[in-house]
Amino acid sequence: MERALLRYRNSVISGLIINEANGVITVKSSNGYNMTFDKSEVEFIERKREEYADHRKIEAIEKGQGEKRISVLATGGTIASRVDYETGAVSPVSDPELIFGGSDILTRFTVAVKPVMNEFSENLKPADWIRIGEIVARESSDSDGVVVAHGTDTMSYTSSALAFMFEAMRVPIIFVGSQRSSDRPSSDSRENMEAAINFAGTDIGEVAISMHGTTSDGRISLLRAVRSRKMHTSRRDAFESIGLPPIADYDGIVKFMGSYRKVSEEMKFSPKLDERVSLIYFHPGLNADDFENMISGKHAVVIMGTGLGHTARDLIPVIKNASANGTYVIMTSQCIYGSTGLNVYSTGRELLAAGAIEAGNMVPEVAFVKAMYLLGQYPHEQFRDLFRTNMRGEILDRDVPEETLRISR
Amino acid sequence: MERALLRYRNSVISGLIINEANGVITVKSSNGYNMTFDKSEVEFIERKREEYADHRKIEAIEKGQGEKRISVLATGGTIASRVDYETGAVSPVSDPELIFGGSDILTRFTVAVKPVMNEFSENLKPADWIRIGEIVARESSDSDGVVVAHGTDTMSYTSSALAFMFEAMRVPIIFVGSQRSSDRPSSDSRENMEAAINFAGTDIGEVAISMHGTTSDGRISLLRAVRSRKMHTSRRDAFESIGLPPIADYDGIVKFMGSYRKVSEEMKFSPKLDERVSLIYFHPGLNADDFENMISGKHAVVIMGTGLGHTARDLIPVIKNASANGTYVIMTSQCIYGSTGLNVYSTGRELLAAGAIEAGNMVPEVAFVKAMYLLGQYPHEQFRDLFRTNMRGEILDRDVPEETLRISR
Repeated sequence: MERALLRYRNSVISGLIINEANGVITVKSSNGYNMTFDKSEVEFIERKREEYADHRKIEAIEKGQGEKRISVLATGGTIASRVDYETGAVSPVSDPELIFGGSDILTRFTVAVKPVMNEFSENLKPADWIRIGEIVARESSDSDGVVVAHGTDTMSYTSSALAFMFEAMRVPIIFVGSQRSSDRPSSDSRENMEAAINFAGTDIGEVAISMHGTTSDGRISLLRAVRSRKMHTSRRDAFESIGLPPIADYDGIVKFMGSYRKVSEEMKFSPKLDERVSLIYFHPGLNADDFENMISGKHAVVIMGTGLGHTARDLIPVIKNASANGTYVIMTSQCIYGSTGLNVYSTGRELLAAGAIEAGNMVPEVAFVKAMYLLGQYPHEQFRDLFRTNMRGEILDRDVPEETLRISR
Repeated sequence: MERALLRYRNSVISGLIINEANGVITVKSSNGYNMTFDKSEVEFIERKREEYADHRKIEAIEKGQGEKRISVLATGGTIASRVDYETGAVSPVSDPELIFGGSDILTRFTVAVKPVMNEFSENLKPADWIRIGEIVARESSDSDGVVVAHGTDTMSYTSSALAFMFEAMRVPIIFVGSQRSSDRPSSDSRENMEAAINFAGTDIGEVAISMHGTTSDGRISLLRAVRSRKMHTSRRDAFESIGLPPIADYDGIVKFMGSYRKVSEEMKFSPKLDERVSLIYFHPGLNADDFENMISGKHAVVIMGTGLGHTARDLIPVIKNASANGTYVIMTSQCIYGSTGLNVYSTGRELLAAGAIEAGNMVPEVAFVKAMYLLGQYPHEQFRDLFRTNMRGEILDRDVPEETLRISR
C-alpha cells in the first residue's frame, strides 16, 4: 500500500493509493472519500510505501465448553472478513470474537476454527471444490459437524459440488456466508454462524446452506444446497431454495420444516470432477457459429434456454452435431422457476431429436455441477440415465404447491 | 406430414410420423401416444404423405362496434395458436372467436387483427424486432392503440427493444402472450388479450406487457417492458417486473397502480440496432481463453456476474484488453434481484479499473438490448454516459421497499 502526497490543480491531497491503472489514479483520503484523477493532471510531491497490519492470517483456534465439537472451516468471503475503513479493503477476520462474541454458542459447543484458504468465492474453481471437500472429509472424522464459511457469490455452486461428491456423510456439512462483513453492527454473520453451528449439531446428512430467512434478524433458514440459488445481490435473505421450503429454521432452536436425509454410519466421498463443462445463456441473436465455438471441446454444455427449455432453431443442427460427437447437451431454463418441457412444442421435440437432455426442474447451476460430477465419476454411457435420476434431492418430484413456499420477493 | 403403417417386433402400428432423425423415428398413434423406435428395428408396410388442414394463415380481419380502434398484430407464439390434437403440433389460430369470443370486448372496441409473422419467439432475431417495430409504427398512425401478440419465451427482449426504439409514441404499445394455447379451456389468452386491448385504449405512452397477475384468473397486470422478465416456465403469472410494481391492473376495468409516461403528440421511432452484442453467463471454471473467444469481435458484451457483479480475477486482464480495444464490457448480476456494486469489494474495483461498466439495477437481458440500441443509434463516445442514464425507466432510482412489491413465489 502506498501513501501519496499530490498536487491537483490548486489543491494538495494526501491519501492511500487504492487503484492505479489506465492512466487513472484513485486515492482514498483520510476522511474516507475516494478521489479519482487523470494521472496526466496530477503532480506527485511524495509517494511512499506504507506498512500496515496484516489481517491475512487466521490461526487455528479451538474454543468453547460444549460436548459437541464443530469444525468451522474458513475459506474466505464476507463472513470471514472485516472492513479496513482506511483503505476500504475487506480483509479476513483475525478475532473469532467478532463472529462468536455475544452469543452463548461457546457454552453449548466446542468450536474449532481452521483456515483453509482465503478467497472471495468468485475466484474459486472446481479444483478448490475438491480441496474443500477433502478437508471437510478429514474434519468430519473427528467432529460432530462441519461448517464451511464461504463467500456468498458462488456458495451454491461449491455446496452443490460437495453435495454430489459426498454420496453419504457421517456428520452434517453446513455452508454459511454473510452479506455484511463481521465487524459491521448490521452484520448478518453472527446469526448465520450461530445457526450454522446449531444445524451442524443435528443429524442432517445433507449439504445445506445457513442464511437469513427474512430481511430482518431472528430467523435463519437451512436450504438444501442442490436447490439453492443466490437470488439477490445484497439482501440478507439472498438465498432461496428454488421450489422447496427450507429444511429447517433456527430462531434460538432448530425447527425442522420438512423431510431430510439423515447422517450415515459411513462416509462415501468421491472427489472427481470433469472441468470440461460449460454453462451458456441462450439469447436472441446468439448465432450458430459463436455457439459452436462455445461448445467446442466441451464434454457437456448446460444451456439456459428460454421458456420450457428452447433455443432458436438455427442452433439445433449444432446441438445435433455436438451430441453425435459425444458432447452432452443439457437444456435448462433461464426462467429459474418451473420445469423444462421439451415435449410441448415442436422446438423442444426437435431439440430432443437432436440429442438434447432435459434438466426438468433442476436449477441450471446445479445441473452444471452435476454434469461435472457425473463425467468425473461414472462411465459416460451412464450419463443420460444418471442425469435424469434424482441423486441428492436436486430434482423435485413435483413442483411444491405455491402456498407452502415461503414468500420471497 | 406422413402417415406410416409399420411393423415393430410382433405389432403393426399406424400413426403420423412426427419426427425422424438420428436413426430414430417417432410416431403419434391415433390414441395420442408418441412411440419412438430405432429405425433399424422397424419395417415399413406403407408410408404416405397426408394432406391436412393448414391453419397457418391468419387473415386480416376487423370486427367490433367500439369507437376506439385497436390494432392487434399477430407474430406467433402460444397466444395465437391452437393445438392440433392429432399431431400434437401447435399451429396458429384462424378463428378470432377463440381469442375474443365470450367477452364484450367487441362491443367496446373495434379490433383489427393483422398477421405480421408466425414464429415461436425463441426464433426471433434483432432484425425481427425492427420489423415488428416498423409495423407498430405504421399501425399507430391510424389506431388508438397497438397490441402485439407474441410468444412468451423472448417477449421481454422484443418488448424492451421496442421500448428503446420508440423514444416517444402516440399510442400505447402493449405486448401480450399466453401460457396455454387459445383453444384450451384453461387458456389464459382471452383474459390477457381482453386486458391488453383495454390497456391499449388508455393514454400509456410506454411499451408494456399484459399477462396474468396471479395464478388464478381475474387479475391481469401490466408490466413495464424494460423491467420485465419471464420468471416461470409454465405459470400464468410467469412475468414479473423486477423491483417494480405493475403499472396497472385489469379486472374488468383498468386500475393504475403507479406513475407512467403518457403518450406524446408525435412519435419518435429509431429502428437501428447493432447485433454484435452478446450475453455471457459467468460461472466457476469459465477460463480466460474460452471467455476471450466469446467476446472476440463483439462491440459490447453483457456479463451476468456473481453477486454484486463479479467475475473470477483471471478474466479481468481479458476484460481490460477488450475494453482498451473498444469493446464495452457491462457487468450485471445473475442474482436477478438487486443491484450491481462494483465499489464494494476489490474484485469490483479491479473490474472498474479494467474498464467495465456497471449496469446497476438494470435487468441483464434489458442491459443486453440497451447495448444493441445505443451502439446502433448513437456515436460510440456517448455509450458509457447513456448506458448509465435512465432512458425508458430501465433503471430504478432506488430499489422499491419489499412490502410494496407483489408477492410472487
